[in-house]
Amino acid sequence: MQTPQTKHKVIFDTDPGVDDAMALYFAMAHPAIDLIGITTTFGNVHVEQATINALYLTRIAGQSIPVAQGVPVPFAKAPGTPPDFIHGADGLGNLPSRIQVGGQAENQSAAEFIVNMARQHPGEITLVAVGPFGNLGLALKLEPQLPKLLKQVVLMGGTVDEPGNVSPVAEANVWNDPDAADLVFTAGWDLTMVGLDVTHRVVLLSDFFKRLKEHHQHVAMDTLYHAVMFYSDFYSSIRPDMGHGCYGHDVLAFVWLVAPELFKTSIGRMRVAKEGIANGQTMLAKLAIPYPQAGWESDKPETRVCMEVDAKACAALIDSVLASAWLRPALQA
Amino acid sequence: MQTPQTKHKVIFDTDPGVDDAMALYFAMAHPAIDLIGITTTFGNVHVEQATINALYLTRIAGQSIPVAQGVPVPFAKAPGTPPDFIHGADGLGNLPSRIQVGGQAENQSAAEFIVNMARQHPGEITLVAVGPFGNLGLALKLEPQLPKLLKQVVLMGGTVDEPGNVSPVAEANVWNDPDAADLVFTAGWDLTMVGLDVTHRVVLLSDFFKRLKEHHQHVAMDTLYHAVMFYSDFYSSIRPDMGHGCYGHDVLAFVWLVAPELFKTSIGRMRVAKEGIANGQTMLAKLAIPYPQAGWESDKPETRVCMEVDAKACAALIDSVLASAWLRPALQA
Repeated sequence: MQTPQTKHKVIFDTDPGVDDAMALYFAMAHPAIDLIGITTTFGNVHVEQATINALYLTRIAGQSIPVAQGVPVPFAKAPGTPPDFIHGADGLGNLPSRIQVGGQAENQSAAEFIVNMARQHPGEITLVAVGPFGNLGLALKLEPQLPKLLKQVVLMGGTVDEPGNVSPVAEANVWNDPDAADLVFTAGWDLTMVGLDVTHRVVLLSDFFKRLKEHHQHVAMDTLYHAVMFYSDFYSSIRPDMGHGCYGHDVLAFVWLVAPELFKTSIGRMRVAKEGIANGQTMLAKLAIPYPQAGWESDKPETRVCMEVDAKACAALIDSVLASAWLRPALQA
Repeated sequence: MQTPQTKHKVIFDTDPGVDDAMALYFAMAHPAIDLIGITTTFGNVHVEQATINALYLTRIAGQSIPVAQGVPVPFAKAPGTPPDFIHGADGLGNLPSRIQVGGQAENQSAAEFIVNMARQHPGEITLVAVGPFGNLGLALKLEPQLPKLLKQVVLMGGTVDEPGNVSPVAEANVWNDPDAADLVFTAGWDLTMVGLDVTHRVVLLSDFFKRLKEHHQHVAMDTLYHAVMFYSDFYSSIRPDMGHGCYGHDVLAFVWLVAPELFKTSIGRMRVAKEGIANGQTMLAKLAIPYPQAGWESDKPETRVCMEVDAKACAALIDSVLASAWLRPALQA
């Protein structure tokens, strides 16, 4: 782990969502991450539920972190239906009950929150985004200088060689808002994509979360375990060979942030298909050559793309971080 | 080689084009291929030039094979400009002169020719198509039963894992007419795709064609050598590491037909991106699972896709076939 001297000041853009919850807890637990705010989006759940879950997850873990609610629908595409068979209707595997922890969202939108924080801390903030990218797209519209004001952006989303999860070529976060995603990939910030090429390599078995629950004896880990069991039921049904477990997905974006040495990356121009049955596909120009097809000009910004990962080391890092003594008593309503 | 008893009755749909010329001569030379007709399309050259070249190439090699002229423009996409820097303005590397060999095109279109021949020889004909697929699309419109009337279709075009040659994701034949290509991939015939995943593995050096020219001492091989030298200048400029040579591209479709054991194939649903900067991309559903994105329903037909090739054995086969005693004196005008 990095030492606290090099702490990453992070805004987390999220649609919790089970793997979002894992990622959030990894970020809260890691000593090198300073989570200064959370912005929510539609995606795994409606945005209102995402906001409720972001407040709930942080406050049951004993921290009050600003939460700003974001976009409810895609930039241009017709809105879809949240996948309640994957994350549960409440985004956390249909929790049987919730304790009262209070909290409320900021009085500004997610995009405004991102822009205001970036202006206050120019060059310091890392934006880690793990849902559809509408808040980032909107923030870019509000502040065209945003790419210079942020330190870097890390995305969970997209895929290059690995088959997609919503079509043979598309990953869900990008597919949920291809227009916003293409804005993000062509904005010109320091951008890293953590997509299915690596997240499908990292399987976390539900036993892993059971041990964390038993270790911590804390409502936050009880909640995460319940959510993961539901989520793993889905993944184990489509990929029985993995055992009862799930992909790490969103948490991998934070793993890249704190341990990039566990990944192999490529760099190239990335665009998003916005139309037809290819929509939501991330397309990487693997060769730096000119093409007759417009849209691939050599002056387009490049994206760093995670292509391979040391899955065993990833799982070990996630385990050690989540098992550390980071949880505080739940906040009161 | 297969024995003549199992001869493939073939219609060759083509836009000659240098690698088309190689493919044509391989087909004319191979004892297991009975080339019963040629249909032409726009692509490497305008369709009128493609027809001129098909007649010229067959007749200088001493054979009179029916040639039917096909579509001049794509189904829906705006027409592009033929790549004269790759194939020459005349499609054969800007030949300094041509001998007089006569010949003229059939009095029916390519699509009509395909349909009529298929009706006359139901279940017997293999259609090998190595240009944009407008003639196949139009023939399907004329005769919806065509997939049942043909024995099989073999395409040179598309790509799965290999980067494209007109965009990072698209191959030229499919990109030249994505709408026709998608009709072809969803028509339901016995369909094999020979794309860049294998054609970029097979490099043919210009010395190889020089030896054939010296061996045959025939105007047809002089012509092919001239064309290949021009074509190889282009490929060697974009890929200097290959030496002076070119990819086999179109000839590989015939190699698959007569020697499928040299290839490893995958099978899956294939669709073509028709819109935006992804247009012309062939997308293969590698997993037989359902997706929320429409267009990937499990009742869609499947395509056999060549993914790997024994490049050395391919080159040896092409050499032995083209070096055999197949050439006849050029026909007279």
